[in-house]
This record gives sequence, C-alpha cells and structure tokens, in this order.
Amino acid sequence: VRTVAVPLGQRSYRIKIAPNLVARLGEECRRLKLGPRCAVLSDTHVARRFAKSALTSLKRAGFEPFLITVPAGEKSKSLVTVQHCHDKLAAHRLERGSFIVALGGGVVGDLAGFVAATHLRGIAYVQVPTTLLAQVDSSVGGKTGVNLKAGKNLVGAFHQPCLVLCDLDTLMMLPEREYRSGLAEVIKYGIIRDATLFRQLERNLPGILARDPKVLGPIIARCCAIKAKIVGRDEREGGLRAVLNFGHTIGHALETVSGYGRYLHGEAISIGQVAAVRLSEAALGFPAAQAQRTTELFQRAGLPVAAQLNLAARRSLFNAMQQDKKVRGGRVRFVLARRIGSALPGQEVADSLIHRVLEAILSRKP
Amino acid sequence: VRTVAVPLGQRSYRIKIAPNLVARLGEECRRLKLGPRCAVLSDTHVARRFAKSALTSLKRAGFEPFLITVPAGEKSKSLVTVQHCHDKLAAHRLERGSFIVALGGGVVGDLAGFVAATHLRGIAYVQVPTTLLAQVDSSVGGKTGVNLKAGKNLVGAFHQPCLVLCDLDTLMMLPEREYRSGLAEVIKYGIIRDATLFRQLERNLPGILARDPKVLGPIIARCCAIKAKIVGRDEREGGLRAVLNFGHTIGHALETVSGYGRYLHGEAISIGQVAAVRLSEAALGFPAAQAQRTTELFQRAGLPVAAQLNLAARRSLFNAMQQDKKVRGGRVRFVLARRIGSALPGQEVADSLIHRVLEAILSRKP
Repeated sequence: VRTVAVPLGQRSYRIKIAPNLVARLGEECRRLKLGPRCAVLSDTHVARRFAKSALTSLKRAGFEPFLITVPAGEKSKSLVTVQHCHDKLAAHRLERGSFIVALGGGVVGDLAGFVAATHLRGIAYVQVPTTLLAQVDSSVGGKTGVNLKAGKNLVGAFHQPCLVLCDLDTLMMLPEREYRSGLAEVIKYGIIRDATLFRQLERNLPGILARDPKVLGPIIARCCAIKAKIVGRDEREGGLRAVLNFGHTIGHALETVSGYGRYLHGEAISIGQVAAVRLSEAALGFPAAQAQRTTELFQRAGLPVAAQLNLAARRSLFNAMQQDKKVRGGRVRFVLARRIGSALPGQEVADSLIHRVLEAILSRKP
Repeated sequence: VRTVAVPLGQRSYRIKIAPNLVARLGEECRRLKLGPRCAVLSDTHVARRFAKSALTSLKRAGFEPFLITVPAGEKSKSLVTVQHCHDKLAAHRLERGSFIVALGGGVVGDLAGFVAATHLRGIAYVQVPTTLLAQVDSSVGGKTGVNLKAGKNLVGAFHQPCLVLCDLDTLMMLPEREYRSGLAEVIKYGIIRDATLFRQLERNLPGILARDPKVLGPIIARCCAIKAKIVGRDEREGGLRAVLNFGHTIGHALETVSGYGRYLHGEAISIGQVAAVRLSEAALGFPAAQAQRTTELFQRAGLPVAAQLNLAARRSLFNAMQQDKKVRGGRVRFVLARRIGSALPGQEVADSLIHRVLEAILSRKP
C-alpha cells in the first residue's frame, strides 16, 4: 500500500493507493473514530460492481451503512440531486458524527463531498474514487460542488475528506475511453510541476495503457503527492492552487458550450491544455519542441487535441470562459507554463491572442 | 454607533448597532475592500420598505448592486430557493470578490448566508438584519442554512459574514407579534449568561415594548456581545456554543410538528425555554422562584408559555426532537440551566422526565 499524506493541520488526511481497497473499506474507516451510521453514495453503474463489497466490509467492521444511488453521469451534479441525497440522509437520521462514503468517479465524489459539506452544516466523508480521473484529481483536495445551467461547479464548498482510498482494481473495469480521459489529468501534473514524471509517461505509455498496476501505482501516487503538496500550501485557492487548473479554463468552457456529455472531462481538458500550451508559447516563450511533445503525448494517449466548432459555438465558448470562477474584474486569468514542469497561475492574455489560438484549435478536424 | 467585535482571527468582523444604518450601507461596505458587483437579497415585504435606500446607498458608494427578492416566510428557506438565487448570481456574473447583502430577517439571513457560502465555493456577505430576532441572534455567528421536510436547518454551512449592520429604525416597522417574538431570544441571553441583563429586562420591559431606541440600543448590543463571545470561543459548535440553543430542542420540534408558520420562531422557543426551565428544575436544581420569574417575564412580553397539543402531536413532537442536530448516539442532549445567568450544554435527561414536562406544558391551554 502506497500512502500519501495531505498536510492540512487538523484537517490532514491520507491517500492510500493499492489493489483491493474496497474490500478493506470497513477496517480503514474504523481507524477514523466516526459514528456507526453511514451512507454509501454511488452511481448506478459503480454500485452494481462495488456496492455490495463496500457495504459488506463496512458491516463487518461494525458500521450501519445504507446505500444511496444516483444516475451515472454529469447530470447528477445538480442541486436537485443534492436535495434528494439530503432527504435520504435525514430519513436515515445521520448525526454529526456520521459519515458518507463517496464510491464512484468525479461526479459522485463532488456530489457526495458537497452533500457532506452541507448536511447538518458539515459531516465527515471518505473518498473511494473508482476512475483514474478521480484518483489523481477530484478525490483529493476538498473541492466539492455541483453545476448550474450557467456553468460547471458554480455551486460548492471546500470540504476535505478524512480519507481517500484509491483501489487500483476498480480501474480495470473502466471503459477504454473513460480510462484514457483520466490520463489527461495525469499528463497535466507532468506539464505543471514535474518534467521527470512527464518523461516517465512518454516512456511508459504502453504499460500505462495496459493498466499494469505495477506501472500505475507509482504514477498515481506521484500525481496525488503533487496535488497534496499544492493543496497543503494553498487549501482555498488563494493563488498557487490555481496551477491545477492548467487547461481547464478553455476545457470547462468547451464542456459547457458543447453540452455536457459530448466531451468527457479529460477530453475537454486535453484540448484545453493544448490551447494553453499554444498561449504559453506566445505569452511566456514555452519552447516549440516541448509544445510538440505535449501534443504528441496527448495524441498517443488517444486524446483529442483539436475540435471542430462552428463560428457561433466558438463565440459562445469565449463567452462561457468569462463565467470561470477565476475571473477577476471581468478579465479571464489563465494558468500558463514556461516549460514542461513549470506553470504559473494568474496570467492575463490579450483577447486577440485568445481568439487566434481558439481559431487554430477549434476549427480544425480533431 | 455601538460596535461589537466578533473575534475570529482572519474571519473577525464587527456588528454595528444604530439608527439609519441602511442608508449608510454603501459607505460601510466600501471599507471592506470588496469587488464592485453585489447582490442585495431580500424578501418582498422588506424590499418594499428598504431595498431602494440600500441600493441607492450602494450605488452612491460606487458598487454595482442588483436585487434578488424571495417570498417572505419560512418557505423560502429551501433548496429550491437556493437554486433560484444561484441562477440569478450566475446570470449577473458574480465573481469571487463579489458579495451579497442579506437585507431582511432570519429567513433572508440564513438563506443569503448559505447561498454566499456555496456560490463559487464561498463569497463574502454582509448581514443587515431587519428584525429583532435576526439582530440579536441569527445575523451573528455564521450559521447559515435551509430546511428539509424532515426538519429545520438540516442543510447548511458555517460561513461568517464580514459585517453586521443592525439598523434600529427597521424595528419600528415590525408587526407587534413579530417584535415580541424577538424578545424570546433577548430573554434567553439573560437566562443562559447574564442575570444582570435579565433584571434589566424585568425592569425596563415597558420601554422595550415601546421600542424606545435609547433602551433598545444597549440591550441589543449586550445580546450581540454575549453571542460574539461565545461564538469567538467555539465557532463550529464543538460544545460551548450549544448553550445558545437553550429552549431550541423542544422549540424546533414544536415548529416542525405544528407546521412551520403556526408559531413564530420566538413563540416556539418561548414555550421551549419554559420547558427547559422545568427540566432544569428537576435535573439541575434550578430554583423554583427563578423559574416563576422566567415564566412571568415571557408572559409580560406577550409570549406563549404553554400550548395545547393532542396526544398524537405530542408523540410526533418527541419523535421530531430525535432529528435535532445535537443528537449523539440516538440520545437527545439538552441545554439546561442551574440558575438565571448560567446554562450548561450537553445534558442528557431521562425520557420519562421529558414526557412529564411535555405533558405539563403541551396539554395546557396557552
């Protein structure tokens, strides 16, 4: 079992990475000194495969779990679903010492985290991320939230989990497209903070694509460690933490205008990162040869690096970017990179340059 | 202008108590160094009287305010209304530096605070409480939230305001019943922490009922100071803060079973406090003569000290108490008092005693 610590004072917690962790959920939770009553929140797909194992393990450890399932997919990240979950928790009389287990991908984690943040003004929760994307990104760091029609994650709270269990076995079940989508966030860590990791990914891509646990374990742990360090220094996104959003300003907007669901999150931020690298070339002198390597790595991972949008869609994309949470004084602020391994948040870029890059990347056949 | 400081480190803020503060809202907000965009959230009743003055003042100070109104009444404390408010904020493109002004009573304050806590994972808000209840209680301390069918305030967050402005003029407009309801919380501070305040209330009740600002100013400031001190020592209700819930366990349950709206909050907790005093007599030796004085003070303030509920309603009331947020291990925990001026949280009481007291108080003609 690999363990990564997230250093946040009283709110510190551990991330564990290993096979077969769902079956050990109960004993892991027992160390947390929480009350017996708990809810396992999952989506219908994940619940079918893993809920029984999770519930059995919790019961064997002396807990009184019950299951809440929501439909799989981004649509469950809504205030309507939040209300549904709260009503269920109240019906089962969760108390302040009770906790929630988020068993699923990013949607379930963000939703369950937000419900935990707001039930009885905050109860504990444990993340059991079952997708690559959730294991390396959304399950760590305490960002929780749901979507509005106007944009993703516009409603939410900072609420740290008390434990994260990354079970490598769950990745074996992922559809190919979803698995590859997760690699977009893995590559992101290389670009923003770790040139060595980036080279490892270039070298070991076949093993990664084959989901070899021996290759994956250390890589997932490294991604979590990078995120843990950044979150530990900037829990509430005062500045530094924004580097984690490399590629996300354009990626989120692309998700919004193309309708949630056409692009998986990782696909959208793959395109967003390619765009951010282009902006970085023009604005911060990101080397052209490294730009080439990033595009190639995304492509080898089976991720899109361009999209074909008509003029109207490109215009509404620019508009959707204004809705980004990092906008200040009406100006969009980008995370850009100086080179592979070094990104900087808070960069303002001329509108003309943004338009030029969007034209280049979003009118091209992907 | 009387000023009370709430000491919470980086989250410290001031409560100001004076006439004519709504008209000075803009200049007060200017000192907070917030962004220009802001939303004034109010209910239709309060907005009719005060929104124009608030918006004018904000505009004159250079802000770009817009108004969101919700229907007056407890029904607006719902996740449906929360969604409505979030959609409005997103449509007006509030940014992380933007803020919300809660202009109204406890419903508006709790709702606006929760919306602020969860919009973009937390933006600033200013409380402008316009009822006595909100001025002495709900606007201070950062408890925000909305109701579920299963009970009051079951969904919420701790989120401190950055300023509280108690405009004494707004109290002049209150309907008599609502004003008297607020006195239940004022009397509570005397019972839980301040025998001197309690005697002042006994002595000055005529001036208080006449809403004389010279009498009210110091009393409201004293209530806020007591609450500020308690909140400063226990922001997230680890233990001490629970004393503020004196009378609320039974009071909240009474509100739930009688349908929101039959009793005003202050009326319900007036009955709840009389019940808590009775429990205190039996469990902690609260002096009978003082018990008599508390009942008399509530009565002189025009507040109910008993209710007539049928057997079925009394049973469901006992049930509703189990839903209280302070329940631990299925046991209800009461705040009880040893004497006027000294209350203790976390007291467990035998079910038989609870039933006896409820029988005595809730089957009597009020």
